[in-house]
Amino acid sequence: MDIRIDIARLRRDIEELGRIGCDASGGVSRPSFSPADLQARAWLKDRLAAADLAVRQDGAGNIFGRLGGDGRPVMTGSHIDTVLNGGMFDGAAGVLSSLECLRRIREENVPLAKPLEIVSFTDEEGNLCGDFLGSRAFTGRLNREEIERGLTQLGIPLADILKGTEFSAESILRTNAAAEAAAPEVEAFLELHVEQGAVLDDEGIPVGIVDRFSGKHYRLCSFLGKAGHAGTTPIELRKDAFLGLADFALRSTQHVATRHYGSFVTIGRVAVRPGAFSIVPGQADFTFEFRSAAPETMKALETELFALADDVARTRGLMFVSKIVDSTTPLAVAPRILDVLTEACGRLGIPFMKLTSGAGHDAQIMAAVTDSGMIFVPSPDGVSHSPKECLRWEDLEKAANLLLAALLRLAS
Amino acid sequence: MDIRIDIARLRRDIEELGRIGCDASGGVSRPSFSPADLQARAWLKDRLAAADLAVRQDGAGNIFGRLGGDGRPVMTGSHIDTVLNGGMFDGAAGVLSSLECLRRIREENVPLAKPLEIVSFTDEEGNLCGDFLGSRAFTGRLNREEIERGLTQLGIPLADILKGTEFSAESILRTNAAAEAAAPEVEAFLELHVEQGAVLDDEGIPVGIVDRFSGKHYRLCSFLGKAGHAGTTPIELRKDAFLGLADFALRSTQHVATRHYGSFVTIGRVAVRPGAFSIVPGQADFTFEFRSAAPETMKALETELFALADDVARTRGLMFVSKIVDSTTPLAVAPRILDVLTEACGRLGIPFMKLTSGAGHDAQIMAAVTDSGMIFVPSPDGVSHSPKECLRWEDLEKAANLLLAALLRLAS
Repeated sequence: MDIRIDIARLRRDIEELGRIGCDASGGVSRPSFSPADLQARAWLKDRLAAADLAVRQDGAGNIFGRLGGDGRPVMTGSHIDTVLNGGMFDGAAGVLSSLECLRRIREENVPLAKPLEIVSFTDEEGNLCGDFLGSRAFTGRLNREEIERGLTQLGIPLADILKGTEFSAESILRTNAAAEAAAPEVEAFLELHVEQGAVLDDEGIPVGIVDRFSGKHYRLCSFLGKAGHAGTTPIELRKDAFLGLADFALRSTQHVATRHYGSFVTIGRVAVRPGAFSIVPGQADFTFEFRSAAPETMKALETELFALADDVARTRGLMFVSKIVDSTTPLAVAPRILDVLTEACGRLGIPFMKLTSGAGHDAQIMAAVTDSGMIFVPSPDGVSHSPKECLRWEDLEKAANLLLAALLRLAS
Repeated sequence: MDIRIDIARLRRDIEELGRIGCDASGGVSRPSFSPADLQARAWLKDRLAAADLAVRQDGAGNIFGRLGGDGRPVMTGSHIDTVLNGGMFDGAAGVLSSLECLRRIREENVPLAKPLEIVSFTDEEGNLCGDFLGSRAFTGRLNREEIERGLTQLGIPLADILKGTEFSAESILRTNAAAEAAAPEVEAFLELHVEQGAVLDDEGIPVGIVDRFSGKHYRLCSFLGKAGHAGTTPIELRKDAFLGLADFALRSTQHVATRHYGSFVTIGRVAVRPGAFSIVPGQADFTFEFRSAAPETMKALETELFALADDVARTRGLMFVSKIVDSTTPLAVAPRILDVLTEACGRLGIPFMKLTSGAGHDAQIMAAVTDSGMIFVPSPDGVSHSPKECLRWEDLEKAANLLLAALLRLAS
């Protein structure tokens, strides 16, 4: 069956959703369960129902829209939550492309051997407790403790954010427990998403097929030294925790850039204590993460980078302490999914390249329960998590048509 | 006249004041105009009155206690405010030693050619708007704008802090304006203070005579780069503002330690934006300060260190911007004051050494209107701005007797 999506209609949907939670400067702020997100959820459920899909949601707030009857569904979707002051495409482009695909299939009455189901996962962006709350709960992979502690990244208790909604920490944990007891039956999962990097844009290629998900290793770290008066403690007698961090930042970056080219290391958040003009820092707290596409590199980086931190601490008379927040191993996309996608590109005449997904995505969480793949749309200049985030409609049209063709093939 | 202070009585005073604003762990928190500080002010005024001194306060909350009639007074004092979670000696030891001196002179009815006046300056610690609010207002050296902006270091509006007190931004500015119009007439000023460094303790010398005040240069600085996704932006394409700061921190410290040994450079506060695990920092804001005892070194440091910052920015594709917050030139103590103090040490048989004051003190502000000097009491292990701050009573006794002898000499 040779059908195509309607890019004009898809664009209208994306632009309409993009106005919910959008400020004057064009930034979209729609963290899960914020007033803007609740409005977006109601809008999405209306849209799914209008497309004649069977709409439901689970205790974690994941929203589903099904076409076809019972059985293991071929699932597709992404998320509609955003970072604070983010863009209108990250997540939304995937959910609404999925909707457009199912809408077209419904309109053409294409016969399906297996049901198709759209999903919009809660809090992909990790504004609440940990990353990927929705897809983790759906697959039974939540960190219970984190939910029970209930302190969100936004600094507001989870209970306060959920107050007045249909959801609660208990309903989220129930959904997770049910999936732990019996993994959801899913035939396959496909997610369309903006690349959030500049690889496709640099290469001038309109569509990316993800063949591998990077591993990630997240830690909260501290160098501990001794606070002192900035005007009376001679430099040679200081135990300046911030200089330890500065040293580690440069050496770890240098190490990754020279010994493990293509891997990533980032210090994204820093707090220095006590934190005053005239006090030598006695403590430097920071987030530290590294990523690589190869499992053996991830292992080597963990050993080498923290040995380096210990060495910096020893050399400078400091202590180094750290706590793992999250750690995932690199993952190859199932050959069956790659075959379906590359074959469809060939048939549709869409130029594509295979690439590694460096960012984390719900598709990676879904890979624990089913064959899971991703289609990337180029991000001009690689801009992401910013009001300036964008995509080209002609690229999105190709990617959504690829998604449509792959879904039909998987559900046939 | 050969009289001595009563160290037991002085100790009781210090310990009594030390209980006001003291928490269970021994930390004293008495920022100016906090409830604890208001209680301490009332306590001090009672003590001054009980010693038969003429008590008054000005619009900036500086408290005075005078012995003798009209005329240019020889002044002595320090401050009773503290940093948050500080110690019981920083400031209080000076004010109460001054009180003990005037009390003894009063008790012995020593005839004075000039009046003596104690002062306890408001907010030496800079918890409100800028450093040295009290002594700056007294000498007409306030930054008007800073007071008018009214945002305190504690993050609370100045107006809220002053609500319910006898003081206001207007009363502070009036005091300052009066001193701008006519500088206060002061014969000389002496301040006894804990060293807040480890020099005297290391040398095993009980008393320090400050012969020079370090110059300080304070700036708020930023490296500006470009935020990016930590999993999709290759290291070689990043403009990581935090790595710029790390580089500058190490190079500036190295530069001062090797080319200007004995000078100080400190990065005490750091904020990285946007500040998330998975985002390459696009901006790194930080405080930067350096100090030196020599005017020519201060000039060289300003040129060299900011050239270095520009070089770091250029090398890394960043921008460097900065704004001067404060800048003072090194200052020599008047020979007359040094003569009085060293001569008194000789007469009393007190071992002493001359040293530079690296920290800032009200005495430095007072130097703008009169001959101003300082007596340092050793800080065991150099601990300062901490509940563990301490002094040895036998050292304090020597220092307070030196203060007494010097005051008598200056007022004779």
